[in-house]
Amino acid sequence: MPQPEPLLLNGFMMTVPGHVSPGLWRHPNDRSDRYNRLDYWLGIARLLERAGFDAMFIADTLGQLDVYEGRADASLRTAAQAPLNDPLLAISAMAAVTEHLGFGVTVSTTYEYPYLLARKFTTLDHLTSGRVAWNIVTTLLESAARNLGLDRQVDHDERYDQAQEFVEVAYKLWEGSWEDGAALRDRGTGVFTDPAKVHPIDHAGTYYRVPGPHLCEPSPQRTPVLFQAGTSPRGQAFAARNAEVVFLMGADAAAIRRDVRAIKELARSFGRSEGAIKFVTSVSVVTAASDDEARAKHDEYRRYLDPDAAFALFSAFTGVDWSAYDRDTELEYIETNASRSLLTSLAGIDGGRRWKVGDIPEFMGLGSGGQTVVGGPRRAADRLEQLAEEAEVDGFNLAYVISPGTFEDFIAHVLPELRRRGRVRTSPPVGTLRERIFPGVGPLLPADHPASEFRLAAVAP
Amino acid sequence: MPQPEPLLLNGFMMTVPGHVSPGLWRHPNDRSDRYNRLDYWLGIARLLERAGFDAMFIADTLGQLDVYEGRADASLRTAAQAPLNDPLLAISAMAAVTEHLGFGVTVSTTYEYPYLLARKFTTLDHLTSGRVAWNIVTTLLESAARNLGLDRQVDHDERYDQAQEFVEVAYKLWEGSWEDGAALRDRGTGVFTDPAKVHPIDHAGTYYRVPGPHLCEPSPQRTPVLFQAGTSPRGQAFAARNAEVVFLMGADAAAIRRDVRAIKELARSFGRSEGAIKFVTSVSVVTAASDDEARAKHDEYRRYLDPDAAFALFSAFTGVDWSAYDRDTELEYIETNASRSLLTSLAGIDGGRRWKVGDIPEFMGLGSGGQTVVGGPRRAADRLEQLAEEAEVDGFNLAYVISPGTFEDFIAHVLPELRRRGRVRTSPPVGTLRERIFPGVGPLLPADHPASEFRLAAVAP
Repeated sequence: MPQPEPLLLNGFMMTVPGHVSPGLWRHPNDRSDRYNRLDYWLGIARLLERAGFDAMFIADTLGQLDVYEGRADASLRTAAQAPLNDPLLAISAMAAVTEHLGFGVTVSTTYEYPYLLARKFTTLDHLTSGRVAWNIVTTLLESAARNLGLDRQVDHDERYDQAQEFVEVAYKLWEGSWEDGAALRDRGTGVFTDPAKVHPIDHAGTYYRVPGPHLCEPSPQRTPVLFQAGTSPRGQAFAARNAEVVFLMGADAAAIRRDVRAIKELARSFGRSEGAIKFVTSVSVVTAASDDEARAKHDEYRRYLDPDAAFALFSAFTGVDWSAYDRDTELEYIETNASRSLLTSLAGIDGGRRWKVGDIPEFMGLGSGGQTVVGGPRRAADRLEQLAEEAEVDGFNLAYVISPGTFEDFIAHVLPELRRRGRVRTSPPVGTLRERIFPGVGPLLPADHPASEFRLAAVAP
Repeated sequence: MPQPEPLLLNGFMMTVPGHVSPGLWRHPNDRSDRYNRLDYWLGIARLLERAGFDAMFIADTLGQLDVYEGRADASLRTAAQAPLNDPLLAISAMAAVTEHLGFGVTVSTTYEYPYLLARKFTTLDHLTSGRVAWNIVTTLLESAARNLGLDRQVDHDERYDQAQEFVEVAYKLWEGSWEDGAALRDRGTGVFTDPAKVHPIDHAGTYYRVPGPHLCEPSPQRTPVLFQAGTSPRGQAFAARNAEVVFLMGADAAAIRRDVRAIKELARSFGRSEGAIKFVTSVSVVTAASDDEARAKHDEYRRYLDPDAAFALFSAFTGVDWSAYDRDTELEYIETNASRSLLTSLAGIDGGRRWKVGDIPEFMGLGSGGQTVVGGPRRAADRLEQLAEEAEVDGFNLAYVISPGTFEDFIAHVLPELRRRGRVRTSPPVGTLRERIFPGVGPLLPADHPASEFRLAAVAP
C-alpha cells in the first residue's frame, strides 16, 4: 500500500474578532477579541509553528458586511468580520518568532497597483526568508467599491480579466526583471547591482501600463506561493491557470470534489502538470479526549451561535439581503448569480433536504458553511481522512470556533493521532514555503506555470 | 536659566542599502546591505530603543532614481536608494522587540486610497500600542508616475490639493467615525460594537468619495502622529496646517530657520497654538572618543564617497539630469522649479561660494546635503546644540554614514554628553508616541489641529 501523503494544514485566520464562527466571540474562552494586539498574533504563530502547521492563511475583505438589512448593524453588533484590520501588517512580527510557518495573505487585485503589490510581496518574502503566499482575490463587496471611489462593483467577468492582467504584470516584475546574481554587493568593484542584469518589463496592456523594472531584488521564492479561492466558472479558470493552492469552501464533499476535478481538468488543458495544484477545504474541528466530551463541547459551542451574525455573513457571501425574504421561503427558489455555488453546496447536504431562509443559521453552523468535524482523537482523524478522500483535497484550512482554543484542542487531541497515521509531515521543514508544499521542486515556480513564460532566460528555475 | 529641552532624536532609515551616504555601503563596517533581513531591522530597533531614541523615521520613494543620465544605471550600480523594499512591512516585527520606540513611516497620498491607508495606520497603531507616525508625502518621482499608470507626474500644486483632501478623508475616518467606547466587547449582552456609535463619514469631494464608516475601531492615538517634509510654498502651507513634526533637510542653518519661522507663522494664521509643531533636521554625526579620531574617521569615510551615487541622488532630488551639464556650469544659473529649495540651501553655505555642477558630490557629502557634525563627545554635542539653536529646530533625524555603526558611535560618544547637558529625556517614556513628543497633551491630536473639526462630539480629546 502506498504511504499516505501528509495533509496540508493551514490555520485559517482573519484580522477580526469572530471569523467564520458566528457569535462565538462571546464564548468565555475565546480570545479573538484581542485581534488588535501583537501578542495575540505572536501566540498563535508560535502555537501553529510548534505543532508543525504549514501556514497561517489570513482572509480579508475590504468593506463592511452591510448586505443584510442593507446596513452593517448586525455585523458590527455580532462581530461578524468587524472591526477589520489590515492583514499584511502583523506578518513580519510573526515571522520574527517562527522559523518555518508560512503566511498566506489575502490581497485583492481590484484596489492595488501591481507595481506596488509586487514590492509588498517581495519585501515580505525577503523578511520571512521565503515563507509568504498570496491569496489572490477579486473583491466581492459592494461596500468596498463604494468606499474606493466606484459607483458599483466592477463586473464579475471583467474583474477576472483585470486580475489575469494584474498577475501577469506581477509575474513579469518577479520573474522577468532581475536576473539571478544581479545584486552583486561587490564592495571591491563598487557595484551593488549590475544594471545590465536588471530589465524593464515594458508592460502595456488593457488595464495596466508598467515599464518597470521591479524595485526590489529577487526574494527567495521570487513569486510568492499563489493561493486562490474562487469557485465561479471564471474563478475556476483563473485558479486552474495561476494557483498553486486552491481553497474550496463547502459543506458538501461531493460538490468540492466536482470543483477539484473541474479545476484539475482545466489545469491540464493549460499545460500544467499533474499535482501542480494542491486543494484545501475549510474544516472546523471540535475535539476533546473522547467522543462524548467532544459532543458535549460541540453542544456547548452551539449555544453561543448568533443567528444575526450568521445572516450577516451569509448575506455578504451571497450578495443577497436575506432579511427581505420570509423565513419560510425555500432557498432553491431564489435566483441569484453570486450565491450559485453556495446554493449548489446547500443542495448537496442532508440528502435533498429543502432548506429555508430561516435555516440559514443552522446551515452556517460553527464554520459558516464549511465542513465541521466533531469527535475524540480517532473519530476526528477518521473523519478528516475520509473527508480528504471524498472531497479529493490535499489538506485543510482549519477554521477556529474559539481562538486559540480550537487550535489547542486540535493539536492536543487530533494531531498525535494523525501523526501516528503518517498524515503529518515528520521530517523537519527545510527551505521556502513552496518547497514545503511541493517537496523536491525548489523554491521557484515550476516550468509549467504560466509565469515561467515571463522568466528571463538567465533565471534558473 | 530655563532648563534646556530634551532634543527630539529619530534614527533616519530607509528600506534600502545605502540611504543618504553616497557609496558608503562599500565601507567594510557597513551592514545596510542586509536591509532585506529581519534581524538587521530588529537589531537597529533594539539599539535605538535602548539608547532612548524617540522614533525611527523611515523614508520611501516609489520609483527608481532614473533622472541622472535618463536611466537608473548609476543608482543601481552605486546602491543609491536601490533596491528598494516596502517601508511598512517590518514595523510590527520591530514593535515586537521594543516597548517605547516610535515608527514614523513615509506613505505617499498620490497612490493610496484614503479608505485603505486609514486602515493600515490604525492597524499599525493598534499593533504598536500607539507608537506610529505617518510621514505624509506627495510623490516626486516621474518614474513612480509612469509605473503607476500615469503619463506624467500630477502637477505639483494639484498634488497638494489632492493631499489636503486625502488627509481630511483620513481625519474623518480616524476622528469622526467611531465614538469612544463603540467597541464594547460585551459578552453578556452579545454586543461587540454598538452600531449607534459608528457613523458614516459621507465624504464626497473633488478627488475622493468615501461614505465610510472606518473599518477599524479607534487605535490609541486615533490619528497617527503626523510628520511632513515639504519645503515648497505649497508644502509649507500643507505642513503648517497638518503636521505635528516637520522635517527640514538642508546644509544651511539660516535657511532652515527661515523655513521654521515661515511655517510657524503660517501655523499661527491657521489658528494652531505656539509649539504645535516640532521641527527636526537631518544630521550625520561622525564621532569617536576624541576630536582627532573623529576627524580621522571622517577622512576615512570620505574615501568611500561615490560621485556617481551623489549625482544619482541629487538628480532625483532636484528632478534635473545633471549629466547633461558641463561640470563647470555654475549651479545658480540653472533655472529649475523642483530644485529651488536645494539651491537656496546651497547658496547659503560656505559664504557665497559659487558651486558648480562638478561640486555636487562635495556638496552632497556624507549626508546628501544635510548637516554633518564631526567631533569627539564635547565638540559634537556643542555643534548639535548650536545647530538646534541656529536652525531653531527641536531635534534631529540622525542619518547614518554606515549602519548601524553611525548609531553605535553616536550612542557611545555623544549621547552621554548630551544627557549630562540635560538634552536627552531622562524620565522613562510613558504612553503613545504623541505623548512622548508632546509631553502632557494626551494621546490624541490637540483641539487646535484641523482634524478636530471632524471629531465627533462624543470623542474626548
